[in-house]
Amino acid sequence: MTTATLQFWFEFASPYSYIAAMRIEGLCREAGVPMVWRPFLLGPIFALRGWPTSHFNLNERRGKYMWRDMERLTEKYRLPWNRPSVFPRNAVLAARVAAAFENAPWISQFVASAFYANFRDDEDLNSDVVIAKLLRACGADAQTVLSAAVNTHRRNCLRRNTTEAIERGVFGAPNCVVGDELFWGEEALEDAVAWAVRRGA
Amino acid sequence: MTTATLQFWFEFASPYSYIAAMRIEGLCREAGVPMVWRPFLLGPIFALRGWPTSHFNLNERRGKYMWRDMERLTEKYRLPWNRPSVFPRNAVLAARVAAAFENAPWISQFVASAFYANFRDDEDLNSDVVIAKLLRACGADAQTVLSAAVNTHRRNCLRRNTTEAIERGVFGAPNCVVGDELFWGEEALEDAVAWAVRRGA
Repeated sequence: MTTATLQFWFEFASPYSYIAAMRIEGLCREAGVPMVWRPFLLGPIFALRGWPTSHFNLNERRGKYMWRDMERLTEKYRLPWNRPSVFPRNAVLAARVAAAFENAPWISQFVASAFYANFRDDEDLNSDVVIAKLLRACGADAQTVLSAAVNTHRRNCLRRNTTEAIERGVFGAPNCVVGDELFWGEEALEDAVAWAVRRGA
Repeated sequence: MTTATLQFWFEFASPYSYIAAMRIEGLCREAGVPMVWRPFLLGPIFALRGWPTSHFNLNERRGKYMWRDMERLTEKYRLPWNRPSVFPRNAVLAARVAAAFENAPWISQFVASAFYANFRDDEDLNSDVVIAKLLRACGADAQTVLSAAVNTHRRNCLRRNTTEAIERGVFGAPNCVVGDELFWGEEALEDAVAWAVRRGA
């Protein structure tokens, strides 16, 4: 029996992506489902709707609920939590690095550390200094990685991911994709993993 | 040990309310959590945002996802499903009856039958004839109930519920309310029930 691969589509600025990113790797490992990280940007997707910012900022009720929900969910999953001073955080550089190095041996550690930088440490995810620090902590060659992610053809990886997300019908984050099947939201992880197990069987 | 009461806030036109309404009573029963039905209307809440209809109609990507998600979720929970020919369904009369008789002995059965009427049988939930038929099938005195729900002070119950929903910060459906704590979405039922158990302990 083999299982289908699960693509985890996420945005570093997204609070629910944080919770999901911290859970999805363990869920996939337990189920024997191969997974890949697919960072993308929500901004261009919100712009398709004419939204200048996150709907959590545009819709006061929705936003208020989300911040309370994050307190409950981080408690439930025992994750560190500090509401960021900036929302949504500009995380383009972090996303550019992650998209350019989706298959690097340090990618899982980098994804986790970038989410912690945003939602625990309130750090700037578009800062060379911050991203270099995170990369070094993951054992990566920070300058080489940053230079490749920003100055080479790898720079296009993030745009390619975001374009693919739009083509796949993505409207928010996080998402799991199994084949052509889209699962949106932190609460859908288990269903997505189960789908990957069944589809691969 | 006692448990807190869980209020289940729902809208008959809402697909996710259908799934949740079919699950919540059993979850509460298993956990020993008392529950009450709180029907309300989403229309006035959407109008607060300037939306003339459901965001599932306004946001094509979001809507497309929802209809596919309903196919998966109804399969997961083994619920009957036919996409309604009208969305969102005008369900004011069904909601008026349910709000006016939240504590009637037949309320659970009526709620279920009205959801089936919408999402299995594609029936008009604002029709006297349909609602009378559903009430009779629940063993209620249809004409007395309809008359009381429409022509007496009980007519205000639905408006009162919707006003309370707005005051509680509701922005969608379904919701569970335990004390002052709001849980939105079909996926949050288990967390809400667990919250009621802990808060009542």
